[in-house]
Amino acid sequence: MKVRVNLMNHENTPEEMIEVLRKAPRVALFSHVSPDGDCIGSMLAMGLALEKMGKEVSFYNPNPVPSYLSFLPGSSRIRQELPSPQPKILLFVDCTDLGRVNMSRSEISRDSIVLNLDHHISNLFFGDFNWVDAHASAVGEVALTLINQLGVEIDLDMATNLYTAIVTDSGCFEYSNTTAQTHRLTADLLDKGVDLSNIHHNIFDQKPLARIKLLQCALNGLEILADGQLAIMTLSAEDFRKSGAEQDLSEGLVNHARSIVGVEVAVLLKEVGPQEIKGGLRSNLWLNVNEIAAQFGGGGHQRAAGCTLRIPMAEAKQIITTAVEEALRIGRNH
Amino acid sequence: MKVRVNLMNHENTPEEMIEVLRKAPRVALFSHVSPDGDCIGSMLAMGLALEKMGKEVSFYNPNPVPSYLSFLPGSSRIRQELPSPQPKILLFVDCTDLGRVNMSRSEISRDSIVLNLDHHISNLFFGDFNWVDAHASAVGEVALTLINQLGVEIDLDMATNLYTAIVTDSGCFEYSNTTAQTHRLTADLLDKGVDLSNIHHNIFDQKPLARIKLLQCALNGLEILADGQLAIMTLSAEDFRKSGAEQDLSEGLVNHARSIVGVEVAVLLKEVGPQEIKGGLRSNLWLNVNEIAAQFGGGGHQRAAGCTLRIPMAEAKQIITTAVEEALRIGRNH
Repeated sequence: MKVRVNLMNHENTPEEMIEVLRKAPRVALFSHVSPDGDCIGSMLAMGLALEKMGKEVSFYNPNPVPSYLSFLPGSSRIRQELPSPQPKILLFVDCTDLGRVNMSRSEISRDSIVLNLDHHISNLFFGDFNWVDAHASAVGEVALTLINQLGVEIDLDMATNLYTAIVTDSGCFEYSNTTAQTHRLTADLLDKGVDLSNIHHNIFDQKPLARIKLLQCALNGLEILADGQLAIMTLSAEDFRKSGAEQDLSEGLVNHARSIVGVEVAVLLKEVGPQEIKGGLRSNLWLNVNEIAAQFGGGGHQRAAGCTLRIPMAEAKQIITTAVEEALRIGRNH
Repeated sequence: MKVRVNLMNHENTPEEMIEVLRKAPRVALFSHVSPDGDCIGSMLAMGLALEKMGKEVSFYNPNPVPSYLSFLPGSSRIRQELPSPQPKILLFVDCTDLGRVNMSRSEISRDSIVLNLDHHISNLFFGDFNWVDAHASAVGEVALTLINQLGVEIDLDMATNLYTAIVTDSGCFEYSNTTAQTHRLTADLLDKGVDLSNIHHNIFDQKPLARIKLLQCALNGLEILADGQLAIMTLSAEDFRKSGAEQDLSEGLVNHARSIVGVEVAVLLKEVGPQEIKGGLRSNLWLNVNEIAAQFGGGGHQRAAGCTLRIPMAEAKQIITTAVEEALRIGRNH
């Protein structure tokens, strides 16, 4: 059984952060660029809870809230302008460092108190008070724990935000960061009556048509190699153009190749510029794709890695295929 | 908050089923045709628990275990022959009636005791003792509760089986049958150390290549109509032939169309024979596709329905499109 650790910096404890929040009349909340369900949902739930305690709150994100998250209660209150005047208490949610909100310490008043609520192991402990639980699947878990400790009763709006946070970052409870605690906290949220169908429809069923067209292009170019162990797909600049899709819409498409029976390694090669190919590599059970990506100056994790190749697509496909086939051959002989 | 109800027949209580199981030296377990993760996982977990209590158990399913479930601990012990001699205690798991195991009451010894463990509201209470919890997302929830009440400590093998059961029938905790209790029971299983990556890989990442090819065909024929509210896909007999796919491999493909932003109704038309078109209809938020299917002699539910049309594909596509457009038009004007 995993031990859950709250990583705090040396000088303070969760109780001190709770104490700061209890006393604060005004709190400004911040969440990171390219916002997702976890940072937005957790920030909103925290803010709504603080508001229930009688505090004045404001919400900031450098980017507009993506339309698929606009159903979240309170989302229309999120601003792209920094709060002015700046309140004394600033609470950063799901941010490893101030760069994640496009801010530097110089933009923060000298007498401000910075609170840092996060779940990334890479967190830089930039706050005056830091609550970083690297064992939490989502910062939503940490926010829910904090709200409980503040003694605020979770209402349906907070529960909807927190459920969205957890379901987003735990990959619908599938990713290996999901723990027994994730499910126990989620159970408490379901007790509040969250509307599963509505949330899942909003989060998972709002795919732009351009993404489906991109999937179509990717599947039309799918090749199965290395005795069925390698599935490789390519997307040309022309594919993006005719689909009307931006680069980021291709995210996750590689999983269609990865989920084919017998496949150990899946690769998606994207032409992002003239003679500029971005490769995304995934493996299922044993192959270390980080090592393959590293051969081409890239990196990542054992099961998910990427690299950029400054050569034409056909050549990129050839050398990645050769590298994967070689790794599979060596692996098999071990 | 939902009240959880155990639907028992008038003559007995869960305690009586527990008492029967406690006393039984031998138990034969049964699960239904076209087995899935819930019936196989729950049957195996129940059997392993009874074995831990010192009982002799046997496992029966009319069909071979699908290869994607062969990782389940104990699955190799499941037989396609009825146990002989037949033990006195017969435990049916996830079966609404004996027809689900291709059996009739005449095949059961007169002095046998039939136990019926299920979660379908349509259960026929065919057992001498029946434990049917229609509020459980999976019969795995009922099995876990029963094992707990039998006082058997859940081990990793049972937990792996039960997690697979629950994740299968709750649609990865997405379907609206998922409750707070589903998550609480799942948390207890994660405490036993189940390997999420391995289970999810086995259940969800074992798609036959033929299915991906079928998806490719379906996407190549995707049309968006009715101002973006209708997404329709077709699969010809030729598509199935060249993909090497059986009819049942197309199951769920309609969801790719349903998940496009703005789409309210998604339709997949399959040519299953000469002039024989099967239509699958799904809606997202409000349209009653059951009513549309009913116009063509079909039926189902408000958000998922089907029908069969004995006309050529082009004609079928035309009349279904017209019917959906009409329903959308009427709905919009309400």
